[in-house]
Amino acid sequence: AILAALAAGRGGTGLLAGIRVLITAGPTREPIDPVRYISNRSSGKMGYAVAAAALAEGAEVVLVSGPTALPPPQVHEFVTVESAAEMYAAVMARAESCGIYIGTAAVADYTPVAAAPQKIKKTLAETQIALTRTPDILGTVAGLARRPFTVGFAAETHDLENYARQKLAGKALDMVAANQVGQGLGFDAEDNALFVCWPGGDTRLPFAPKRRLAEQLVRLIAERYRATGS
Amino acid sequence: AILAALAAGRGGTGLLAGIRVLITAGPTREPIDPVRYISNRSSGKMGYAVAAAALAEGAEVVLVSGPTALPPPQVHEFVTVESAAEMYAAVMARAESCGIYIGTAAVADYTPVAAAPQKIKKTLAETQIALTRTPDILGTVAGLARRPFTVGFAAETHDLENYARQKLAGKALDMVAANQVGQGLGFDAEDNALFVCWPGGDTRLPFAPKRRLAEQLVRLIAERYRATGS
Repeated sequence: AILAALAAGRGGTGLLAGIRVLITAGPTREPIDPVRYISNRSSGKMGYAVAAAALAEGAEVVLVSGPTALPPPQVHEFVTVESAAEMYAAVMARAESCGIYIGTAAVADYTPVAAAPQKIKKTLAETQIALTRTPDILGTVAGLARRPFTVGFAAETHDLENYARQKLAGKALDMVAANQVGQGLGFDAEDNALFVCWPGGDTRLPFAPKRRLAEQLVRLIAERYRATGS
Repeated sequence: AILAALAAGRGGTGLLAGIRVLITAGPTREPIDPVRYISNRSSGKMGYAVAAAALAEGAEVVLVSGPTALPPPQVHEFVTVESAAEMYAAVMARAESCGIYIGTAAVADYTPVAAAPQKIKKTLAETQIALTRTPDILGTVAGLARRPFTVGFAAETHDLENYARQKLAGKALDMVAANQVGQGLGFDAEDNALFVCWPGGDTRLPFAPKRRLAEQLVRLIAERYRATGS
């Protein structure tokens, strides 16, 4: 399978033939101490499906993944990371050499100010964790001098389309794909639906298996990528 | 396999024949909002191995498990939970009907004071999460009028034996099994080592696959269970 993929990626056929595509997937884990962490419900399924769909369209795929329970996919480069800081470093080392960036990872927005070197003892009845913002991977990629065609994801529990359009404009992205989460929808589910917007247009990809949605999304990305002449 | 296990559990052979054993395994997840949570690095492997070892010794096994990536084991009753509060409820509904309780789960010590009903927006550069203690499952089981033979686990990054003995005495347990975590040891590893103590004695189970360690631990539990005439 990997040989076929490599052959397809090198001047083969497909809408993304010969284009290097950087994809992030899964959650990140932000350490509180050596055993505890903050994370989120991302399963990585959508990102891995996008990687498979890009590969099927002939792309040279680099997948940067947080911790998931999924088998490692047959991509050109597979990089595993834990924290948002690690994902930031892995992406920044590769983004300028890629034609397209698709940020599907559910990167932690906040991380503990300092991870304790030893396991924290439970001596207090109440306590608190001081948090600070993580680096904005998507915004930094979109702001690069040699920026790739930059696609962001948004997972929202409410007011989906507004947040998607705000994210598109606020970070000057080329495209945003947004999905509803919560109440059994989204993260751990096999099926999902997407609202996709770009400067000057939008579309809805109705409820379908993530693999099918990923194929549709990748075709849409390839189309917009060509249209904008990135 | 399940039929053989059921046959073994019903008046069959083995050191725990006919004894109902309640085991907790895995981490818990404490929701911050619908997508974010606090958890820990427990893989559930040790608890699932203890469940398999107890089953092999003829016990009737009830396994209460937090979220893990492991296949559901062939036990007599398998209960999945997410939060410490859910694990507390599942254990308390069953503990008094069991002869032995083995708490291998890495239950969160703290949980957010209130989970936000909607995904929290990242508007602030710095923020904090207010935390409150979770219910003490192990201590509550040990304090029941009709208490089972109660075994606790301890995972520590340092000063292992002291904490294990403090936990044994502090919660009036029948046994504590303690293991070192951090630096690649413990949670996600396939091998581990245990320091086991009980009122009046202790032993060390040297570095071995978790399955092998679990067999030795279950034999030790069966021995002490009989010796104390619980």
